[in-house]
Amino acid sequence: MIQLDFKKLDGLVPAVVQDDSTGEVLMVGFMNAAAWEATVKSGRATFYSRSRRSLWVKGETSGNIQKVREILIDCDDDTVVLKVEQIGGAACHTGHRSCFHKKFDRGSIRVIGEPVFDPRKVYGK
Amino acid sequence: MIQLDFKKLDGLVPAVVQDDSTGEVLMVGFMNAAAWEATVKSGRATFYSRSRRSLWVKGETSGNIQKVREILIDCDDDTVVLKVEQIGGAACHTGHRSCFHKKFDRGSIRVIGEPVFDPRKVYGK
Repeated sequence: MIQLDFKKLDGLVPAVVQDDSTGEVLMVGFMNAAAWEATVKSGRATFYSRSRRSLWVKGETSGNIQKVREILIDCDDDTVVLKVEQIGGAACHTGHRSCFHKKFDRGSIRVIGEPVFDPRKVYGK
Repeated sequence: MIQLDFKKLDGLVPAVVQDDSTGEVLMVGFMNAAAWEATVKSGRATFYSRSRRSLWVKGETSGNIQKVREILIDCDDDTVVLKVEQIGGAACHTGHRSCFHKKFDRGSIRVIGEPVFDPRKVYGK
C-alpha cells in the first residue's frame, strides 16, 4: 500500500474530487490513513469527517456515491486528486452538481447552476 | 471583501488551482486571510507557506505566476477553486505541468508526462 504524508495536517490529506468526464471540481474532502485505504480498496470515495470524527463513504445517505476512476498523487505525497464517476449527478448536499457553485465576482457572490435534486427529499429534512 | 471560514483549519483554507483552459488540477495550496485578500486584490495566486510561515506569490522565484481568471467558493465557504492562466506552462517545482503527475495504479506509482522546464536551471539548484 502506497502511503501518503499525513503528518503535515495532523493526520489528514486534502482530497480533490474531480468529475472524470468533465473535469469539474466537485468537492474537496479530507482523508486520514483509514479513509485512504478504504478508498483504494473499495473504489468508492471515502473521507474522514472532521466534525463527526469518523469515516464517511461519500453518498452513503444520499445514494450519490463516487466511483473512483483514477487517483493522482502530488509531488509531495500530501494531496490527492480523485477522478470519479458521480452517481446521481450531484456531489453537494445542497443538490448542486458541485460544491463549488458560488462564483466570486467583483466582490460579491453569485450562485451558478441549478440544483440537480431537492435536498429535503433526499435527506428527509 | 467576502470572508471565508478560516476557523476549521487553524486559519487556513485549501485552494485548488485549476488550469482555466484545460480543467487540469495543477496544485493545491493553502491560504490564510492575508493570502486570500492578496489573491483577490492582485489577481495573482498567493498562498500561505506553512513551512516558511509567510505569504508566497506563486511563481515569484520561477516566474511561473498564476493569473486568476475565476474564483469559485464552496457551499461551506471553507475551500476555494482558482481557475488560472499558468504562465510558463508548468505549476510544479519539479518542472511538470501539474503537481499531480504521479498516477496511482494498482498499488504502484507511475509518473505521467514530461517536465516542461528543468528545475535546476529555473531555481539554480
